[in-house]
Amino acid sequence: MDVKNVRAFGTEAAEAPLKSMNIQRRSVTPHDVEIEILFCGICHSDLHTARNEWHGTIYPVVPGHEIVGRITRVGAHVKKFKAGDLAAVGCMVDSCRECEYCKDGLEQYCEPGNILTYNSPDKHLGGQTYGGYSESIVVDEHFVLRVPENLDLAATAPLLCAGITTYSPLKHWQVGPGKKVGIVGIGGLGHMAIKLAKAMGAHVVVFTTSESKKEDAKRLGADEVVLSTDPDQMAKYAKSLHFVLDNVSATHDMDAYLNLLKVDGTLALVGAPEHPLPVAAFSLIPARRSFAGSTIGSIAETQEMLDFCSKHNITADIELINIQQVNEAYERLLKGDVRYRFVIDMASLKNQHN
Amino acid sequence: MDVKNVRAFGTEAAEAPLKSMNIQRRSVTPHDVEIEILFCGICHSDLHTARNEWHGTIYPVVPGHEIVGRITRVGAHVKKFKAGDLAAVGCMVDSCRECEYCKDGLEQYCEPGNILTYNSPDKHLGGQTYGGYSESIVVDEHFVLRVPENLDLAATAPLLCAGITTYSPLKHWQVGPGKKVGIVGIGGLGHMAIKLAKAMGAHVVVFTTSESKKEDAKRLGADEVVLSTDPDQMAKYAKSLHFVLDNVSATHDMDAYLNLLKVDGTLALVGAPEHPLPVAAFSLIPARRSFAGSTIGSIAETQEMLDFCSKHNITADIELINIQQVNEAYERLLKGDVRYRFVIDMASLKNQHN
Repeated sequence: MDVKNVRAFGTEAAEAPLKSMNIQRRSVTPHDVEIEILFCGICHSDLHTARNEWHGTIYPVVPGHEIVGRITRVGAHVKKFKAGDLAAVGCMVDSCRECEYCKDGLEQYCEPGNILTYNSPDKHLGGQTYGGYSESIVVDEHFVLRVPENLDLAATAPLLCAGITTYSPLKHWQVGPGKKVGIVGIGGLGHMAIKLAKAMGAHVVVFTTSESKKEDAKRLGADEVVLSTDPDQMAKYAKSLHFVLDNVSATHDMDAYLNLLKVDGTLALVGAPEHPLPVAAFSLIPARRSFAGSTIGSIAETQEMLDFCSKHNITADIELINIQQVNEAYERLLKGDVRYRFVIDMASLKNQHN
Repeated sequence: MDVKNVRAFGTEAAEAPLKSMNIQRRSVTPHDVEIEILFCGICHSDLHTARNEWHGTIYPVVPGHEIVGRITRVGAHVKKFKAGDLAAVGCMVDSCRECEYCKDGLEQYCEPGNILTYNSPDKHLGGQTYGGYSESIVVDEHFVLRVPENLDLAATAPLLCAGITTYSPLKHWQVGPGKKVGIVGIGGLGHMAIKLAKAMGAHVVVFTTSESKKEDAKRLGADEVVLSTDPDQMAKYAKSLHFVLDNVSATHDMDAYLNLLKVDGTLALVGAPEHPLPVAAFSLIPARRSFAGSTIGSIAETQEMLDFCSKHNITADIELINIQQVNEAYERLLKGDVRYRFVIDMASLKNQHN
């Protein structure tokens, strides 16, 4: 198979910082598109994987799954795209396409397991897939998204993971007019959730531990903001919400948030705390509540989300950095020191001389 | 208000055994019916309340909320019943009738709180409501159920709590033909769940820790039985079930059962373990699973359940006892030594001479 050497940023060990490296990309096969990467968001998963915190990393790893770029080449059978089009790639680049979930258009639940954008087996070149911290990427057109022309490109990148991860549960649990929705945590995911839930027409109540983020929550679209460290404020919202989207990755008190739900309400977790979360049976039983989890969405739903964001003029709040700042950005991410998503200007990779 | 002294069995302290006592019942008001109690099931809640294990008991307490009897008197405005009719009373005897849930016919979720059959404030006589371990009970007709003529009366009593508590979630989560359903635990609730799920047309997989209950599970209607202590057997059922009804009251490994669910599957807890249950975020997130809880059903749904049981000829498996054996029955209940529900023949109370 024809391959092309491209420049990327990645790491060869859990303890090592990210650095410039060369990787290979395949030439386009009949259903592939080749994308010049313009912007790539930094997701906390990138850091978890680079540092092997989920124990599945195969090195070298090139993170990045919030990819926006421009198509430079298309395979002979590609129908959806042509060279010059804007395009985006999210967390998946392939799936089995034969299992019950793939047939239902739910590639995120592919039974044998979908192929993630990085650190998944690469069936074309062998080894592992490499993500968006790179000059270009080659992806089957089915897994490539159209990018609306009216949105800021850099601020669109985080929609590909943070956007769909919050949009999908808000849609699945039917958030909309007449619904009171709680959003817990204001970070990369949470700040998107506030914008999306508001645009869907819900009444949005934001829960934060940080007094300093209250004004920001309102600017993002919150109708009400609750300081979750204040038991009196929390008590006022007991049994009042139809749905809660919980974006917090640290261990936290699930019962406190489950008790905000009305009868038949659901709390969906999209943050992924490392340790098991204790849940009291009586937080669920008397009001038929559900404690659920949700991951990214399907390709079709990701396109629907991008089109929804186009219509409502929604993008992420970002801080644009150069690729040479990625290790520093990871440290700041760990401290929550970003409002609310780092995005790498991939033009900076062209200026990398080693 | 006119009152009548009736004989009952109850206790005056958490540490004291149940004994004969006299209580008062109101005369029927215009919407009331008076029921001579023929049979009363013993629910684990009776024991929890008698011994103040849920910390809310006001003494004296007379337990019992699986009540079947015959109507002896009806108030002037009663429409659904006449003297001589069979009738049943479950866990509730009143509710506010004005909140959003009561208006929707979901009295089990009454906002200010419904009036339970025992140990709830009695708005007619003051003090607390007294349950079914008694000669008779007076209840507003809205909270009284019609009893099908074709069922064994004693074995019908447990339907009023164990039956509706399992029927309601099976219906709510749409168990029926084409669905694979797990039933965890074979006791008072679990044995009803097996019968009901099978009659609804589902494929029923029963999970038990007890090799000795495997044959019984099949007799009750299980299509497959899994020994949950065997990791190899459990592994075979990973990601295979649409719904799991968990009837276990002891602390147990929720992740092991959550991982049996397919994408979008729900595990509903109806047993009520005392201690918080640890749940791993990754048991929920990758397959959009839900960990839910469910309580009894509404009055309308309880009637629907009784009619369903009539049609499918379903009752509980019971051991009939006299009221004088109730303390011994409680001890056996604690050891799981009953297949699968004790029911008190209330005629025995008439032979009580102290």
